[in-house]
Amino acid sequence: MALKIYWGSGSPFAWRVMLTLEVKRLPYESRLLEFSKEEHKSPGYLKLNPRGKVPTLKDGDFALYESLAIMSYLDRKYPDPPIFGTTPQETGLIWREISETDSYLGDPGTKIVRPVFFGKGLEKTEEIQEAATTIRRELKRIDTTLANSAWLVGAEISAADIALFPLIQILLRAASKEAAKPLNLGFSPLAQSYPNIAAWVKRLETIPGYERTYPPHWK
Amino acid sequence: MALKIYWGSGSPFAWRVMLTLEVKRLPYESRLLEFSKEEHKSPGYLKLNPRGKVPTLKDGDFALYESLAIMSYLDRKYPDPPIFGTTPQETGLIWREISETDSYLGDPGTKIVRPVFFGKGLEKTEEIQEAATTIRRELKRIDTTLANSAWLVGAEISAADIALFPLIQILLRAASKEAAKPLNLGFSPLAQSYPNIAAWVKRLETIPGYERTYPPHWK
Repeated sequence: MALKIYWGSGSPFAWRVMLTLEVKRLPYESRLLEFSKEEHKSPGYLKLNPRGKVPTLKDGDFALYESLAIMSYLDRKYPDPPIFGTTPQETGLIWREISETDSYLGDPGTKIVRPVFFGKGLEKTEEIQEAATTIRRELKRIDTTLANSAWLVGAEISAADIALFPLIQILLRAASKEAAKPLNLGFSPLAQSYPNIAAWVKRLETIPGYERTYPPHWK
Repeated sequence: MALKIYWGSGSPFAWRVMLTLEVKRLPYESRLLEFSKEEHKSPGYLKLNPRGKVPTLKDGDFALYESLAIMSYLDRKYPDPPIFGTTPQETGLIWREISETDSYLGDPGTKIVRPVFFGKGLEKTEEIQEAATTIRRELKRIDTTLANSAWLVGAEISAADIALFPLIQILLRAASKEAAKPLNLGFSPLAQSYPNIAAWVKRLETIPGYERTYPPHWK
């Protein structure tokens, strides 16, 4: 039975799993849920994922949610190519990067992306600026790592790159919005401030099947 | 060369790694950093961990930080007993539990633990009550899981249990403080509200070497 992935346009967590499927060249059935129609809160979907979030993977009778869990599952079941490293050191460093991505880009990112996209909380300028400072520091660190290496850990693309990429994309999209102009976030133009991250983004965009993972409503 | 672990008393993230070392029965050298003396910000330590946090593991020349990264590294290098499952399904479910622990107990937990321990932010009652509601809902879910099973995933203790346990302990400690009384958090007595979690805590406390992992300043 084919893998079936339930995702939503613009969810960075769903995007991680879509990229994993493409990097591993796994055939899958794509089920794009419409947030505006509350399809992620339908009774049928809540049976698969009681939290009513995306992504959810179905592999035969087995349903799984949480992006990092799905990536770990897929890597264990379909290990070629490996995305969690080929040595204990690589595995450790990949998970370190993922933890850092979620703590220092994901959490602060939410404090910017939500107000900019939905207009709610834009008055919390101090909180937003503090989050932007954390993110710029983190982007600088990542840019330095990528100065000497095509990928974050090891010689090939890994879960560290896959987990980070959608968060970078959503931050850039937020920064490009009219509502973000007065915030002077300093994330873009990426090629100017963070040239190595910009080159890495382009590298990721050439993955075969990349266009299938791109949020439809961003096109 | 022996494994060396840098930890701090009361850090739930350091506690995870200490428990992992004991579950795997690995010999290690323990280096307890004194937060009050800023030992985690010393130049020597910052070379190992530029974020100045605990835990950090040294294995020969290799230094690694971030608790989940260290747990993944140790499991890959010293696979017996496995803590990330023995099948792809178990691996997926273990990482799902860990993600849920960090999102629905760890993040809201911070909003309670910090004000209660350090007295700052206790006036944000709405935020604290919202966090407490999320945590109670999550404890209920976990209690239901543990009604039919000794451990969160599979037949043996796993990284899911190890990642959760220190967060439960720190929440209980916060709830026991005088400053928490007016908040009516509803976490304790654990045995009354969440009997299966209480039994699971006792089970974990019998792990050989457990007393070595217990925060010294809590004794």
